[in-house]
Amino acid sequence: MSPKITTELLKQLRQVMKNPRYVQEPVQAYIVPSGDAHQSEYIAPCDCRRAFISGFDGSAGTAIVTEQHAAMWTDGRYFLQAAHQMDSNWTLMKMGLKDTPTQEDWLVSVLPEGSKVGVDPFIIPADQWKRMSKALRSAGHDLVPVKENLIDTIWTDCPQRPCKPLITLDLSYTGVSWRDKIVALRSKMAERKVMWFVVTALDEVAWLFNLRGSDVEYNPVFFAYAVIGMNTIRLFIDGDRMMDPAVREHLQLDSTLEPEFKIQVMPYGSILSELQAIGASLSPKEKVWLSDKASYALTEAIPKAYRYLTPYTPICIAKAVKNTAETEGMRRAHIKDAVALCELFNWLEKEVPKGTVTEILAADKAEEFRSQQKDFVELSFATISSTGPNGAIIHYKPVPETNRTLSVNEIYLLDSGAQYKDGTTDVTRTMHFGTPSAYEKECFTYVLKGHIAVSAAIFPNGTKGHLLDSFARSALWDCGLDYLHGTGHGVGSFLNVHEGPCGISYKTFADEPLEAGMIVSDEPGYYEDGSFGIRIENVVFVIPAETKYNFKNRGSLTFEPLTLVPVQTKMIDVNLLTEKECNWVNEYHQKCREVVGAELERQGRHEALRWLLRETEPLARVQ
Amino acid sequence: MSPKITTELLKQLRQVMKNPRYVQEPVQAYIVPSGDAHQSEYIAPCDCRRAFISGFDGSAGTAIVTEQHAAMWTDGRYFLQAAHQMDSNWTLMKMGLKDTPTQEDWLVSVLPEGSKVGVDPFIIPADQWKRMSKALRSAGHDLVPVKENLIDTIWTDCPQRPCKPLITLDLSYTGVSWRDKIVALRSKMAERKVMWFVVTALDEVAWLFNLRGSDVEYNPVFFAYAVIGMNTIRLFIDGDRMMDPAVREHLQLDSTLEPEFKIQVMPYGSILSELQAIGASLSPKEKVWLSDKASYALTEAIPKAYRYLTPYTPICIAKAVKNTAETEGMRRAHIKDAVALCELFNWLEKEVPKGTVTEILAADKAEEFRSQQKDFVELSFATISSTGPNGAIIHYKPVPETNRTLSVNEIYLLDSGAQYKDGTTDVTRTMHFGTPSAYEKECFTYVLKGHIAVSAAIFPNGTKGHLLDSFARSALWDCGLDYLHGTGHGVGSFLNVHEGPCGISYKTFADEPLEAGMIVSDEPGYYEDGSFGIRIENVVFVIPAETKYNFKNRGSLTFEPLTLVPVQTKMIDVNLLTEKECNWVNEYHQKCREVVGAELERQGRHEALRWLLRETEPLARVQ
Repeated sequence: MSPKITTELLKQLRQVMKNPRYVQEPVQAYIVPSGDAHQSEYIAPCDCRRAFISGFDGSAGTAIVTEQHAAMWTDGRYFLQAAHQMDSNWTLMKMGLKDTPTQEDWLVSVLPEGSKVGVDPFIIPADQWKRMSKALRSAGHDLVPVKENLIDTIWTDCPQRPCKPLITLDLSYTGVSWRDKIVALRSKMAERKVMWFVVTALDEVAWLFNLRGSDVEYNPVFFAYAVIGMNTIRLFIDGDRMMDPAVREHLQLDSTLEPEFKIQVMPYGSILSELQAIGASLSPKEKVWLSDKASYALTEAIPKAYRYLTPYTPICIAKAVKNTAETEGMRRAHIKDAVALCELFNWLEKEVPKGTVTEILAADKAEEFRSQQKDFVELSFATISSTGPNGAIIHYKPVPETNRTLSVNEIYLLDSGAQYKDGTTDVTRTMHFGTPSAYEKECFTYVLKGHIAVSAAIFPNGTKGHLLDSFARSALWDCGLDYLHGTGHGVGSFLNVHEGPCGISYKTFADEPLEAGMIVSDEPGYYEDGSFGIRIENVVFVIPAETKYNFKNRGSLTFEPLTLVPVQTKMIDVNLLTEKECNWVNEYHQKCREVVGAELERQGRHEALRWLLRETEPLARVQ
Repeated sequence: MSPKITTELLKQLRQVMKNPRYVQEPVQAYIVPSGDAHQSEYIAPCDCRRAFISGFDGSAGTAIVTEQHAAMWTDGRYFLQAAHQMDSNWTLMKMGLKDTPTQEDWLVSVLPEGSKVGVDPFIIPADQWKRMSKALRSAGHDLVPVKENLIDTIWTDCPQRPCKPLITLDLSYTGVSWRDKIVALRSKMAERKVMWFVVTALDEVAWLFNLRGSDVEYNPVFFAYAVIGMNTIRLFIDGDRMMDPAVREHLQLDSTLEPEFKIQVMPYGSILSELQAIGASLSPKEKVWLSDKASYALTEAIPKAYRYLTPYTPICIAKAVKNTAETEGMRRAHIKDAVALCELFNWLEKEVPKGTVTEILAADKAEEFRSQQKDFVELSFATISSTGPNGAIIHYKPVPETNRTLSVNEIYLLDSGAQYKDGTTDVTRTMHFGTPSAYEKECFTYVLKGHIAVSAAIFPNGTKGHLLDSFARSALWDCGLDYLHGTGHGVGSFLNVHEGPCGISYKTFADEPLEAGMIVSDEPGYYEDGSFGIRIENVVFVIPAETKYNFKNRGSLTFEPLTLVPVQTKMIDVNLLTEKECNWVNEYHQKCREVVGAELERQGRHEALRWLLRETEPLARVQ
């Protein structure tokens, strides 16, 4: 992997930073964040501006270019990769290390007095703008919005913004019509006394209208905004997508509808001017609801006194609680996904000893088996297929330069998932195709104990996910071990594999309480640098729990695994499990047998069924 | 306990809220927080303004009075007590329940347009001012400082502010001289590039100068502020206290000292004008360090650009990590405290069956036994001596109207502690002097399991206490039970029984990571309204833990109990304990026998020693 040569590009960028065609006054620094205009985690190629200017294409990083310097901030996952991908024009700023300056502090240290720092106001979230702007102002500089994205002006072969056809989802998938979702949203708006709600996150637009797209890889979303008023619905979207008769029918564009459900379709690019028009027309007390992570440009379109900002939107919260149709869909998707993985692991067990299976081949094979299942759409994220030391790189993705061959001597970790039209999956299994060492089994068993501690936890209604995080670590902590990532994230229903507002993490972000119907992952791990990685991940469903007592009538919750893929018993040191944990494993495997076994039978996959039966033999604990 | 009749008082308050003598413009609402000008938790009688206006005298609560309403916000510990103490003029706002509005939301819902909300700027912490002011402003109202406290204007028989003599502590108690503490503080100031540090919390002033007082009951503090410059020390304190030769000698007031250690003594009331003078004299880049919980009035004295605010001051953090002299003192104090409690419980066991022991008598007897111990100063908080249904009132304090007689038919809960010159104690034991029911034993055992889960927890260096809270609840949660308070708080060394910056709570306040040398309480409970209360509390010391592995060389921590008082085995359902939990109890009781037994022997308290030996017989688990 040789670095991208950026000398010429940086020269061009520095020219446009002074070009009056693009900037009112020259800017002495220009910030290139990671995101797109919707603050998406996964972005389209046309939005990979930071990768274009620097060569560094990890999922997190911010570039800042001044007249003299070019610097890149990224976190511990990407120190090596960024160092490899960037040329000597760039300084790597290792976030999380003690001596690394913040972007603000660095800017203040290198800028001449009274500088202007430019940024695309559509890309920077309003909360980040506020922090950065405040720090710069207190040092005598100014953060200024540069309307035209300066990278785009020099990116001559920039790919087009994708504009792929839409998929309509009927009630059998969504459970609730888009009209009923609009009604529910308007009632939340009325509660908070807001007149307008601006939908900026792509998955929120998709969920609200029961539409899906494929503009961004792995995430079935499409580029659009929406603005919902108490009597109007405006959808901002480009292309011929609204010409599709199925879409027109789904959105009832050609029907005679009550005016409050009539969707006005407007060009994607007109969101700002429309919002500005709304902003200018507001009477006192007419508030506009936005996410506090919406872009600075859209947030500024609404005068400050009229803004109502929240960390989580009502759509984000409603979307997290799955209804019966969505839950049933998620169940079906997970059964199909388990069938594919039984096929894969059965195949791996036969092929790995031959020495012909690489990480990439295994990942491809996993995709192949998944694609044979009904309603398969695409993967839900880049497959993490890693063996031996690669397993310790938590966000590893195999590429030809690192592609390692699976063997009977190393632990193999597969973290993968798919988008099916009825649901989204995300599962990690850690396997050994030979004989694991006692130490490997010990570590695996601690991770399993943590996984079970979360999965079997009973907790009161209203508990926030972060209060469960330590349960996942307790067995590791007892032996002085730990893992440096959170334990779980929300999962969408045929939507983004990572979604808010709930999660299970030691980082106390502003998570919302867990509620019956939410779906999260449970994925503790243990990683030994240069040696191996272990992670056991199920997607779990929050369900009411039956308890002996019921304090203050609050009710209790617990989790039900949606993922039904055997946990390799060969890796378990049964003597480290309590009786309760041992029973959990046996009951889980019994359920895998019954549910996935029946589906394997139905699909006539007899060899994989035999593998499943073998892998789900009950554990016997020595007393 | 009959409620305080507040009709007339509220009428008077509503009058002064409009009286131009006190307010520039009428205020439509007036906020009466709990605290004093130092944001103390325990306050002097002259500062009990919220109790005066409402009748509710729990340690936490905020009253807001509008022209039409009077509302009181308090937490789960005080729901019952507040309901009993307040008359029908007051609405109780149960914090932590889902439907309870925040103070801001409630104000916005009841206030007429464009209202003024008044508050004493010396009482409200700056961070609360900021949040409240922002929320009100965005709804079109204004938070305004009312210089004269409006409660004081109607409180005709308000007691005088106390001004008691000081106690000096030598190195054998404190381990570090005040001069060395000043040197360490100035080095922290230099690190952060601040020129001034303002000490506003009473326990921080006391700790810094190795002085103690008795201005506030239970907390050995005195009313004072301090302002530390790089070359100056100013102590703001009233009365003849600085005339005491011991104090003058201790502070070296009459010695020829290097100027940077010369203490300037100034009147307590001059803090604001002195700070304003400092604020006016600052050159650019000269910052002043304050706690973000300092009062709005003092914070405002420093122009915004010159303020350096942190949630915890360097004194708060240094004070939390006890040195060897302090730790040894805390150990001694806890042994003496255990001796007193062994005497008490032995006495109760004999007297309770006679039907002559009331809650108040038991509390008095506890104080009597403690006062026989060396270096006893006073209690560290009002003794919670509660039997039967009174035990369910979490912060109950017996008064003649509620004073219940202990009996062999009810559970007795005693939460008590003392200030000794060498340390502060806080211990809760729950006892039955007859035969507990199976249900009482079951609940007690879940609480004990939670207590052990925290006490025996092993966790990485750098872990924040709130990540341990769920361990204390897990056994209760499994059966649908819970308790509505945090699990632990920091404990001072002959200082406040509650201190920051660490704690163990489901509330994710900005706690600092636990460090070896810190001291916290471990006190899960279970409360059944109208029936009984259970709590098991030890003060525990954070110590390094030996573990099998050592991930990233981070090191691990665990707890060592400082409290050494038997847990009543009669209340334990041994079959609900794991082997590990059973061993924990037996080892703990063995240590009580050895350490406290030796001291009882030394003090010639043979009957109490026999009680201790009987109560610490090992548990036998049925396999």
